[in-house]
Amino acid sequence: MADSERVMVDFRTEPARYKHWKLGVDGRVATLAMDVREDGGLRPGYELKLNSYDLGVDIELYDAIQRLRFEHPEVGAVILTSGKERIFCAGANIRMLSQASHGWKVNFCKFTNETRNAIEDATAHSRQVYLCAVNGPCAGGGYELALATDHIIMADDGNTTVALPEVPLLAVLPGTGGLTRLVDKRHVRRDRADFFSTLEEGIKGQRAVEWRLVDEVVPRSQLEETARRRAAELAARSDRPGGARGIRLEPLARTIEANRVAYSHVTCQIDRERGVAEIIVSAPTAPPPGDLKGIQAAGCAFWPLAVARELDDLILHLRTNEDAIGLWVFRTAGNGDLVEAYDRALLDHASDWLVREIRLYLKRTLKRLDVSSRSIFALIEPGSCFAGTLLELALAADRSYMLGGPRQGDPQPPASVRLTGMNFGPYPMVNGLTRLESRFLAEPGRVDDLKGRVGEELDAAAAEGAGLVTFAPDDIDWDDEVRIGVEARAAFSPDALTGMEASLRFGGPETLESKIFSRLSAWQNWIFQRPNAVGPKGALKVYGTGERSDFDRGRV
Amino acid sequence: MADSERVMVDFRTEPARYKHWKLGVDGRVATLAMDVREDGGLRPGYELKLNSYDLGVDIELYDAIQRLRFEHPEVGAVILTSGKERIFCAGANIRMLSQASHGWKVNFCKFTNETRNAIEDATAHSRQVYLCAVNGPCAGGGYELALATDHIIMADDGNTTVALPEVPLLAVLPGTGGLTRLVDKRHVRRDRADFFSTLEEGIKGQRAVEWRLVDEVVPRSQLEETARRRAAELAARSDRPGGARGIRLEPLARTIEANRVAYSHVTCQIDRERGVAEIIVSAPTAPPPGDLKGIQAAGCAFWPLAVARELDDLILHLRTNEDAIGLWVFRTAGNGDLVEAYDRALLDHASDWLVREIRLYLKRTLKRLDVSSRSIFALIEPGSCFAGTLLELALAADRSYMLGGPRQGDPQPPASVRLTGMNFGPYPMVNGLTRLESRFLAEPGRVDDLKGRVGEELDAAAAEGAGLVTFAPDDIDWDDEVRIGVEARAAFSPDALTGMEASLRFGGPETLESKIFSRLSAWQNWIFQRPNAVGPKGALKVYGTGERSDFDRGRV
Repeated sequence: MADSERVMVDFRTEPARYKHWKLGVDGRVATLAMDVREDGGLRPGYELKLNSYDLGVDIELYDAIQRLRFEHPEVGAVILTSGKERIFCAGANIRMLSQASHGWKVNFCKFTNETRNAIEDATAHSRQVYLCAVNGPCAGGGYELALATDHIIMADDGNTTVALPEVPLLAVLPGTGGLTRLVDKRHVRRDRADFFSTLEEGIKGQRAVEWRLVDEVVPRSQLEETARRRAAELAARSDRPGGARGIRLEPLARTIEANRVAYSHVTCQIDRERGVAEIIVSAPTAPPPGDLKGIQAAGCAFWPLAVARELDDLILHLRTNEDAIGLWVFRTAGNGDLVEAYDRALLDHASDWLVREIRLYLKRTLKRLDVSSRSIFALIEPGSCFAGTLLELALAADRSYMLGGPRQGDPQPPASVRLTGMNFGPYPMVNGLTRLESRFLAEPGRVDDLKGRVGEELDAAAAEGAGLVTFAPDDIDWDDEVRIGVEARAAFSPDALTGMEASLRFGGPETLESKIFSRLSAWQNWIFQRPNAVGPKGALKVYGTGERSDFDRGRV
Repeated sequence: MADSERVMVDFRTEPARYKHWKLGVDGRVATLAMDVREDGGLRPGYELKLNSYDLGVDIELYDAIQRLRFEHPEVGAVILTSGKERIFCAGANIRMLSQASHGWKVNFCKFTNETRNAIEDATAHSRQVYLCAVNGPCAGGGYELALATDHIIMADDGNTTVALPEVPLLAVLPGTGGLTRLVDKRHVRRDRADFFSTLEEGIKGQRAVEWRLVDEVVPRSQLEETARRRAAELAARSDRPGGARGIRLEPLARTIEANRVAYSHVTCQIDRERGVAEIIVSAPTAPPPGDLKGIQAAGCAFWPLAVARELDDLILHLRTNEDAIGLWVFRTAGNGDLVEAYDRALLDHASDWLVREIRLYLKRTLKRLDVSSRSIFALIEPGSCFAGTLLELALAADRSYMLGGPRQGDPQPPASVRLTGMNFGPYPMVNGLTRLESRFLAEPGRVDDLKGRVGEELDAAAAEGAGLVTFAPDDIDWDDEVRIGVEARAAFSPDALTGMEASLRFGGPETLESKIFSRLSAWQNWIFQRPNAVGPKGALKVYGTGERSDFDRGRV
């Protein structure tokens, strides 16, 4: 981490504080216009010219996408466009990238990737369809933003092009899924994708349509009108309720001390010596509201939504501000019956727009865990409540330890875990499988068998027998076994662990998302530290200086 | 490339020259015993202790696998074991790895990966089933060799374990597909795979069976006998002809001059200034033999087999000995009718064991092209013969240029390309799709339409219209367009091109193989150049010195 990166990044924001985006809502259609303030960078040392972006710009975009989902049930389509006259977006800011440490670049790309995926998730599952009006040159990360939408309309004005100039200009890969989306989402023919990705100046007009790079081109004068018309058509097909009222995402309360981060249901204690974050997620303390009205009234205080927001913020905080904390240990505390009751509420009202949003948010938050470059352990002890949604934390862990039998001197009953319907579908991983399906690739039938055990309290022996936990030591062995596991993890190379975890977490099929995170990102990481990109004569370093990069020509 | 790596590596060998392997054939069952000569390393500076291996050891293994297929049609099962008393295999030699350049390590892993895949291809498609008798500690690349077989029998003797100790010991990943095969081939539960892959000492006995790491454990005294029995059972189920006679793979004739490599049907001219290898593949000069007897009699002079061997050797030569040559330009020369006639012979006799082997060899050779970290162009000009099997070279290319119309002063008719049945199935890529299927992800129906055009001579306009070539400039534009394409390619960062090509070549589904090459390898590459592995205090550097590695704890 470079020194300038040591200033804490806060992912919490709200429209009134946006510097870079203008969010407008007009009935069923919203418009999200990028209008980056040149002097509004998150860090000193670069200017955000030509609508280029840094992490700060993307944090606002992420917030806007979230608010559109929760605060605007009536919106069925979102037009993504530029608020500037002569440029759509030049992509990630290059001076920012060239100054950033390797870790910063990789973490930046991970977050921007997740935000692009959130756009696709909103389109597919929230039925809030994103489309893009490209009203000026659209390069690199700019085009990748367009690629995340479902319909790209480009102005045909001689000035507007789409381009992925990273390889020819900067000697790196497009960092947010561009190459994968070309061939795997838009199905651009691979030889055309090759040519396009080596073309500094990009492609415009009819050829961009023929090559499937955009969906339509229209005269500049008709761009806005066409986008509005298409958006209205798409919105009309959405099942989002025009008459419903959204819930406000109130500012998230959080306290941060030197080694502690606390929210209302999630706390995190940091042990810097061992490089461990101990995270405790607490069960609700009261039963869920009895009906939808009550859920609506609870708003962002509704426990599942509150937990999603807190976990989401904590994950982003730890990733960005605590990179030396390599192991996240999850515990839970509280009443499993109440966790199960909330899961039931989520299932009973699954078709409601708000409950759907909450479920999707939990899904995305759990996915963030899976793709975090941190080791994850779960400790299941007396007093814990690993049920349903919270059991997913243990299933997301690289390994879990469950204490078998009572703990000496602890009057609480032995630990148990519990399956709910939420473990069997609502929370797929980036590979498209549930965590249970990913776990039982050898015996897919076990997932069906486990469906029959929903609601059962499974003690350590039963959970181990069912394959739900890794180890189940008793009280005599517990402390040593957990300590040895934690200490060993802390002693390994962080890089090797990142590669190992990325390889073991996602067995089975691959999807666009898993290809982006596990494959494209790995290549990107590799290239991000090659001398040809970041060495003193590397393309990323000399860009804009007038110097030429000097490549080592050896192919690897 | 380090200086010691500048000595040319020759991939051609034969059993009489093996230093490290003992190949025995007993009726339907062969035994391939690893018995590495400590002083037999390919390079100075390391000893191959404990049956550890370097590229030289793997070149012999590759040769043995090839010969078993072609020279031993009667063999239906192959027992892979160690020829040493107290060790199975300690994996890739660590001193070799720690001395090697980044490029050497990556290229070494690519070849060893292809050889493991060849074992699986022999098992699945040649019906020569590999099984493994683990008769001593089996670690890292040793266990990855076992994982490439379909049945692992381990001695239960207190000394024999399987292990993947790369992460805890060396701060790198297992380099030949180990992690992927754990979860995606053997379906080891991901949390168990996590624990196993962090365990220096490995796992033995019954737990190894329970965790699916091996298929059975038997007392040491029964290991050989059990392996022989299982092999006999597997061989009995093979369709390989017990009574057939193999064909001998005669030494491959090749001349190498400073800038030229020539075989009988393949020549390669190297332009060091531009970093380009111009490769010409020539058509056969006579029709194929009229029957199987004739094909058998032609043996390794049969044109498709000869071309496979020559291309295979050339690809390996260029990858290993010519790393600064970043662009391979393919041309063909000769009579397309004859190429088509040979394709017909391959299809007419598809069920014959030898013809099957030839087809599988062509498939593997074309796959090597796809995963080569080199840009590939195809130039289709008058006098060329891109038909069927040879058309795959153009379809494997990152882009192709086809000259439209006649060339001034050239009496030859304009170029044409031709589809044969060989373009529609026999040559899948690592993603499981044919090159045509990979090309037309947007419109899968086009592949079916093209089936109706088999045998048609398609001129440039027709080929471009059918989507088979990227560009079809006429004689006026040809020279400039090709020159600009070639020169631009030479100017880009080799690393960025490697990542870009790996991302664009394999759209669509993923398989075990594509996961290994495109995902695991990318992570491995990344880790292979991280200071935590290869810096002065990196684990790979200090291993065996008694020093402790000193890790940067930042997670990336």
